[in-house]
Amino acid sequence: MLAATPDPPYIAVIFTAVFGPDATGYDDAVTEMRALAEQQPGFLGMDAASADDGGIEITVSYWATPDDAAAWKDVAEHREAQRAGRERWYDSYQVRIAHVDRAYGGGT
Amino acid sequence: MLAATPDPPYIAVIFTAVFGPDATGYDDAVTEMRALAEQQPGFLGMDAASADDGGIEITVSYWATPDDAAAWKDVAEHREAQRAGRERWYDSYQVRIAHVDRAYGGGT
Repeated sequence: MLAATPDPPYIAVIFTAVFGPDATGYDDAVTEMRALAEQQPGFLGMDAASADDGGIEITVSYWATPDDAAAWKDVAEHREAQRAGRERWYDSYQVRIAHVDRAYGGGT
Repeated sequence: MLAATPDPPYIAVIFTAVFGPDATGYDDAVTEMRALAEQQPGFLGMDAASADDGGIEITVSYWATPDDAAAWKDVAEHREAQRAGRERWYDSYQVRIAHVDRAYGGGT
């Protein structure tokens, strides 16, 4: 299922990463982070995909306001620091904060 | 490898989709569309990930200006119409046009 976001404008946080050789604990962390995001103020939805054969991961989360996205960044980084996951799982990562001003789609 | 984009601002086109049961020809089309995108004016990069077990696909392409992104939309839709791929491959899809105004990352 794709995230069912309201009409724009809203914020998208685009997280991309290249996996390293050791993904131990990664799946559990993704499940936990998603549950955590859903509890945050202004959370509108999240889409995630990662190639099973290594490759790259993309997670896009959607937020009502820039402040909501910034608050999620603080929560997520605090939790990741506790787990010390990012350094182990990823060879490299990139975070982009973006203002969505148009959206369209199709299908069921 | 992740897309190596310049400093913001730039445009991100976030494409998300749920695969249907028939993905015949999909991989070839992705390769072709990526080669096509790289030839377009204002192309800055592209990140793509799709779960091998079905699930969802996310492709984010980055463009210098809104006009560049709009021109790519026309080119991509024309090519997809020629291949009649979208209707067969996807149960549903969503396209979001976003202005990236901040980016940061880490790793190698």
